[in-house]
Amino acid sequence: MDASPLKVVVIGAGFGGLEVAHRLARANVEILVIDQRNHHLFQPLLYQVATAALATSEIAWPIRHLLRRDRHTRTLLGTVTAIDKLAKTVTLADGATFPFDVLIVATGARHAYFGHDEWEPHAPGLKTLEDATTIRRRLLTAFERAERESDPARQAALLTFVIVGAGPTGVELAGTIAELAHNTLPSDFRNFDSRRARVLLVEAGPRVLANFRPELSEYSRRALEKLGVEVVTGRAVSRVDAEGVTLGEEHIPAATVIWAAGVQASPAALWLDVPADRAGRVKVEPDLTVPGAPDIFVIGDTAMVMSNGAPVPGVAPAAKQQGRHVAQTILARLKGDRAPRPFHYRHQGSLATIGRRAAVVDFGRIRLTGGIAWWTWGLAHIFFLIGVRNRLAVALNWLWIHSSGSRSARLITQRETPASTQEPVDKRA
Amino acid sequence: MDASPLKVVVIGAGFGGLEVAHRLARANVEILVIDQRNHHLFQPLLYQVATAALATSEIAWPIRHLLRRDRHTRTLLGTVTAIDKLAKTVTLADGATFPFDVLIVATGARHAYFGHDEWEPHAPGLKTLEDATTIRRRLLTAFERAERESDPARQAALLTFVIVGAGPTGVELAGTIAELAHNTLPSDFRNFDSRRARVLLVEAGPRVLANFRPELSEYSRRALEKLGVEVVTGRAVSRVDAEGVTLGEEHIPAATVIWAAGVQASPAALWLDVPADRAGRVKVEPDLTVPGAPDIFVIGDTAMVMSNGAPVPGVAPAAKQQGRHVAQTILARLKGDRAPRPFHYRHQGSLATIGRRAAVVDFGRIRLTGGIAWWTWGLAHIFFLIGVRNRLAVALNWLWIHSSGSRSARLITQRETPASTQEPVDKRA
Repeated sequence: MDASPLKVVVIGAGFGGLEVAHRLARANVEILVIDQRNHHLFQPLLYQVATAALATSEIAWPIRHLLRRDRHTRTLLGTVTAIDKLAKTVTLADGATFPFDVLIVATGARHAYFGHDEWEPHAPGLKTLEDATTIRRRLLTAFERAERESDPARQAALLTFVIVGAGPTGVELAGTIAELAHNTLPSDFRNFDSRRARVLLVEAGPRVLANFRPELSEYSRRALEKLGVEVVTGRAVSRVDAEGVTLGEEHIPAATVIWAAGVQASPAALWLDVPADRAGRVKVEPDLTVPGAPDIFVIGDTAMVMSNGAPVPGVAPAAKQQGRHVAQTILARLKGDRAPRPFHYRHQGSLATIGRRAAVVDFGRIRLTGGIAWWTWGLAHIFFLIGVRNRLAVALNWLWIHSSGSRSARLITQRETPASTQEPVDKRA
Repeated sequence: MDASPLKVVVIGAGFGGLEVAHRLARANVEILVIDQRNHHLFQPLLYQVATAALATSEIAWPIRHLLRRDRHTRTLLGTVTAIDKLAKTVTLADGATFPFDVLIVATGARHAYFGHDEWEPHAPGLKTLEDATTIRRRLLTAFERAERESDPARQAALLTFVIVGAGPTGVELAGTIAELAHNTLPSDFRNFDSRRARVLLVEAGPRVLANFRPELSEYSRRALEKLGVEVVTGRAVSRVDAEGVTLGEEHIPAATVIWAAGVQASPAALWLDVPADRAGRVKVEPDLTVPGAPDIFVIGDTAMVMSNGAPVPGVAPAAKQQGRHVAQTILARLKGDRAPRPFHYRHQGSLATIGRRAAVVDFGRIRLTGGIAWWTWGLAHIFFLIGVRNRLAVALNWLWIHSSGSRSARLITQRETPASTQEPVDKRA
């Protein structure tokens, strides 16, 4: 009998991948976690880095530090370029090859431009720390340039911020940018009143926060408008360029456009040579395995799977539940039980904030709005943040922002990268 | 009689420039502060950002936020390219021109390679936030690459860190990198023992911390060696390349080399067409004015001035004292008193830390070493940090690092910039 440990390779150290690694840490397995970045990122708070409320190190942690106590787990910084299903190996960009007995693909998603990749340089999305610092830099630089601009039309364009897509990320960005302009910055500038800044939230669908109940959407729209956000629903963006956005026939001059409208899964389906849905997600079996490859699992934003008659949403709790499910499946197999175990998603609720006074919480039967929803949202996020120190730092920062209206992380670092050296759209491990 | 306010232009919002602006805020003047960056940087703690102990936002603050209450002060993000002494104007890179009645040049210094600028790509210096994140990325990436390296010689080179120059910055970098390798990282890696990492501190002069008393230098050398740093004095670097450093005949393979050996003032002397010393500093009159241009002051690291028979050192307290002196001179002139007022430097002491247990403090008659010196150093720096929130956050971070040995800011962000797009050496406003 062969007692050598099972080789488990996990690609991607997001919520799903880390969950698998943690739950297998004490089993008779050897785990290798591969990621393109050295850090796990708490994506739900990324918009706060983009809007200068939090520092990057407050929502990200070195992967190998998170896994340091799991002695049978190794972490590698590397970019996967191929998976060989038959030979059961993973190949990295530098040619190194790693064998696996079981593979978990948890490589996440990037923002997508619906076939208009030429819009990306003008409308960055928000998925990585670099995305967040890019948006922060553009946001703050627009105000700096407005201070020096004497032409009223150009100054107005510099003070126009368009957020495309009114899901939770778009709503959260619009709310915090409006607060930044209306509450934090007014005393900083001399040549314009930052309260004149226009913040537009553009949504092609009929309402904001389409995944929430209609009455919560309606509440959110009103809360956004109270913050000074112009909410435009039912109109799709037909063009984005250096001058601004076009909605149907109307051109809106804007120096800053942020994309929060769509995502595209990482190229896992190409690596695995299996069918994908329109968003590039691998259509997995009910037990999250790849069709015809029972030792390869795909989870999180990279997977398309149905549960209770609906597709499982691309949110952190779903990825974590899938990670736990896969770990349990592997543990059962180690005991000789190879019966298929279908995954069932348990929806725990939807949360979104609107600035720093209001939020909406949709727990199904329980729905909350306003201040109480904001605190529920805040506590839920602090609770889920990994690492005591970061909980303290984030809590301290929020208390500070709440009591003073100040934003401490308002730094322009990095410089704009020349277009020729820009990274390709898909960068996930 | 002309009562229109005096136009004061300050180039550079470091310690000196900000001090001038603050102290003139209530006078009948119009102040314009120009800087290439949007933030004031607390340079004495920059090495902590480079070694992943602090986040960038904990030691930097938006300039216009620091000056927001001074209603007659404007802040501009811009790069100065020329000064016209006769027309009394300052020109920015975009061609914009600003007139002044009084000009204060406080543009700081960059690291210098003693005529070997080709060393810079291999041995980054530490003057800006970008420098710090560059060094942090290289440091952490070296460990990541060592984890994947199977060749023992190449792995040893990846685990060799050479710091050139044993002034306070070099000593502080060497101490914290040794601690990072020996205390923080050992449990993170599987393929090597990070305690095997070599940290070399190379100094051409006869001792470390040459500006301190010899017994404090000796104490510092022993404290560094206790942390595992190899201190090499009396040997100059003859070459730096992608493979490592050469000391005389000896080649030391090293993936990470950090430059802390010399500084070069910003090109203010060229703008002003006046004599400079070897380090590029403008030789100012005893009252800090430019020879032949009594309405132009040069202060801080950009100025070369004697006081009490010795050159004033390029440290933050000296820049602040000069800023205060210039403000007082301008206030006196506003009252009609144009008598020259020579600047006298008051040395308040020298401080340097060696890791997180020891430090040396040289107050002249009072000299401290060890833990008490560390706490003196820590309190002095927290006291000088601007902004309550940052004091709290820095204190919290330090407490955390002390109690846990963890480093929270261990993130690799940004990517290496291709050589063709690298910034020129001198970037200060």
